[in-house]
Formats: sequence, structure tokens, C-alpha cells
Amino acid sequence: MSEVLERLGEVLEARKNADPESSYVAKLYDKGLDAILKKIGEEATETVMAAKDGVPEKIIYETADLWFHSLVLLAHQGLKPQDVLDELDRRFGLSGLEEKARRDR
Amino acid sequence: MSEVLERLGEVLEARKNADPESSYVAKLYDKGLDAILKKIGEEATETVMAAKDGVPEKIIYETADLWFHSLVLLAHQGLKPQDVLDELDRRFGLSGLEEKARRDR
Amino acid sequence: MSEVLERLGEVLEARKNADPESSYVAKLYDKGLDAILKKIGEEATETVMAAKDGVPEKIIYETADLWFHSLVLLAHQGLKPQDVLDELDRRFGLSGLEEKARRDR
Amino acid sequence: MSEVLERLGEVLEARKNADPESSYVAKLYDKGLDAILKKIGEEATETVMAAKDGVPEKIIYETADLWFHSLVLLAHQGLKPQDVLDELDRRFGLSGLEEKARRDR
Repeated sequence: MSEVLERLGEVLEARKNADPESSYVAKLYDKGLDAILKKIGEEATETVMAAKDGVPEKIIYETADLWFHSLVLLAHQGLKPQDVLDELDRRFGLSGLEEKARRDR
Repeated sequence: MSEVLERLGEVLEARKNADPESSYVAKLYDKGLDAILKKIGEEATETVMAAKDGVPEKIIYETADLWFHSLVLLAHQGLKPQDVLDELDRRFGLSGLEEKARRDR
Repeated sequence: MSEVLERLGEVLEARKNADPESSYVAKLYDKGLDAILKKIGEEATETVMAAKDGVPEKIIYETADLWFHSLVLLAHQGLKPQDVLDELDRRFGLSGLEEKARRDR
Repeated sequence: MSEVLERLGEVLEARKNADPESSYVAKLYDKGLDAILKKIGEEATETVMAAKDGVPEKIIYETADLWFHSLVLLAHQGLKPQDVLDELDRRFGLSGLEEKARRDR
């Protein structure tokens, strides 16, 4: 389906050594963990607002922003997009949704 | 890299017609948009807490929860995971990160 | 105990007619509801981060930021701090915490 | 204006020694910091949703929930509502809003 997450993970990894002035992400790394987490809280709020507005383009845009900043967090912590996809696969591999259902009860 | 998002998107689509009592997701659909959005706010907060704890397994686990509930939102709104991946690809296709950098200044 | 909330409510009310360039709050009103709500999501996240850091001064500071932006929201919606205090009083007036406990079960 | 915050602070302090099964708050203390913070993230999201719905009663209700859980956090951390009110007073005592405006630029 998509190599974009993998590719993005690699780009985000490479940006760790970049000059803070050279890109948005390099600047975010330079500000540190709290700045990244603040963006996750912010983008989650914007996703919620977009959904309340019911405008599909905005929902896609804000969800992309939310996923993007999650990817920045993963890279900052030495993790990869594949780690999250593996976790999703583990949960929903076969009867995964039922497993989740059981877990949340 | 991963077909898990695509597959998960299909499963979430299929669950729309399921009995609310049959699964966690079917119950969430039945409760409606606000219940889904509340979960997004909740999982974003848990991702932030996991990152502050600095435990890799928790960060992966909570990010998976956050992405999962974003996927439920997308399905609920008639959207697909690919829509978000396309948006990420559009932004970061080539010089995408620079484009983002410019946008956010 | 405190007239600061009441006084702050009045100041925030007065700022509605101010030039957007004249103050932080006037600018926030001018940007509109979504800008105010985005701040609430942001400040809630920062309160969570401060609590995880366990630094009392930061918890106080971020909670004040969170309450402040709640007050801006109330004013923007034609509501008063007293409305929220009345709601808290209604719930916790006498055996209020028990009432809440029952409600949440 | 209001002694409700002070009174509520005292009740929340007293609940620290209560049986976890005896009240909602005692149970929340027993679950620990993360459970309290999760509620703050949740109630902030619900405040945002209520504001998007534009229903005054819901905005008041959810803001009260958000403040209430902030008060639980303060008590849990050995802090008082007055600490936050003092911080607000310090900022907005006289030309406070301008100070804030300058700080945020």
C-alpha cells in the first residue's frame, strides 16, 4: 500500500544531524521532546475540530499533521514507523479486533 | 512496507454494519462521532505521557492506539488510510519537508 | 477566597472591543473560536507534561494558562466564570462528590 | 466571588485518606497520577467539542469537569487552588494582560 511512512521515517532519521535552521523538523528536534509532544497535543485538538466541522479535506489534512508529528516523536526516540505498524498488525492480524474488544471491556 | 493500514481500513469499513455488541469498534461507531473524538484526545494524552516516561514499548503501544482511533475516525467519515498517506506523500514527496518548513514559518 | 476570576472575566469581556493589535487576548478573539480551542488543547498538554516532570512551579504555571484560556473561551461565548463556579457548587455543594461518584460509575 | 474553589480544595485534600471504594475522587487518587492526567486530556477534548457544538450548557458543564480534574491534580501534587489564583493574580493584577501579551509575542 504505502512506502511513504517508511520513506518519511528515513528522512526524519536523517534530519537528526541537520542544522536546526535548515528545516522545520531539525528545529523541532533542537527544541526537544516537550516541543514535539506539544505539537502532538495541538494536532490531536485540530483533528477533533476538523471532525466537528465535518470537512473531509480538513480531517485528512489534520490527521496527516497528527501522524507526521507522531513520526517525528518516534524518530526522536530512536523508533521506526514499522514498530507501530507491527504493533497494529499484532493486534489486528487475524481476530485482532476481537482481542482489542476483549481487552477494553 | 505495510499493508496493515490498508487491511485495517477495510476491516473498519466492514465493521460499520456489525452489531454494536459484536466488537469494540462496532460499539464505538454506535456511540457516534464524539465518542471517537474523545478517544483521540485520550490516546494523544497517553502518547504524551508514555513519551515523558521514556519507555519505548509504551510509546509504540500508545502511538498504535492513537493511529488506530484515527483510522476509526477516517472510516466513520467515509475516508481511507490512503487519503492520509497521499497527503503525507504530497507534502514530503521530494522536497516536501522543506515545503512544510516554509509553510510553518 | 478569590475575586481574581471575577475580575479577569470582566477584563476579558472588555477586551472584546479592543483593537486586535492592542493585546494578546484581543488578537486571540480576532482569530476566532478555533484559535482559542487550539490553545486549550495545547495548555492541557502542557499541564500534563508539567505534572509528569513533577515540578510544582510548572504545574501551577501551566494550570493557570489552562484556566486562563478557559476563561477566554467563556468570554468569547458570552459566559462568565461564575457560571462554571455555580456548576461546581451545584455538584459539590453538600454531598456533591458522592453525586459525582454515582454519576461516573 | 467564590469560595467554592477553596472549599473544593479542602474536600479534595480530605479525600486523600479515604477508602478508594468510597468515592470517585478516592478511586482516582488510588489509580495514580496518570489516571488523573488522562482525565485532564479527556475533559479538555470534551470542552473543545462542546464549544464546537456551541451549546452554552455543555460548555459550562465540560469546563467545570476540566477545572474539577485540574483541582484533583493540584491536590494530588500537594498544591492548592489558591496557588493558581495567585499566579493569575500576579499576571493580571494590573497591567497583567499586557504583560502576557508581551510574553507571548
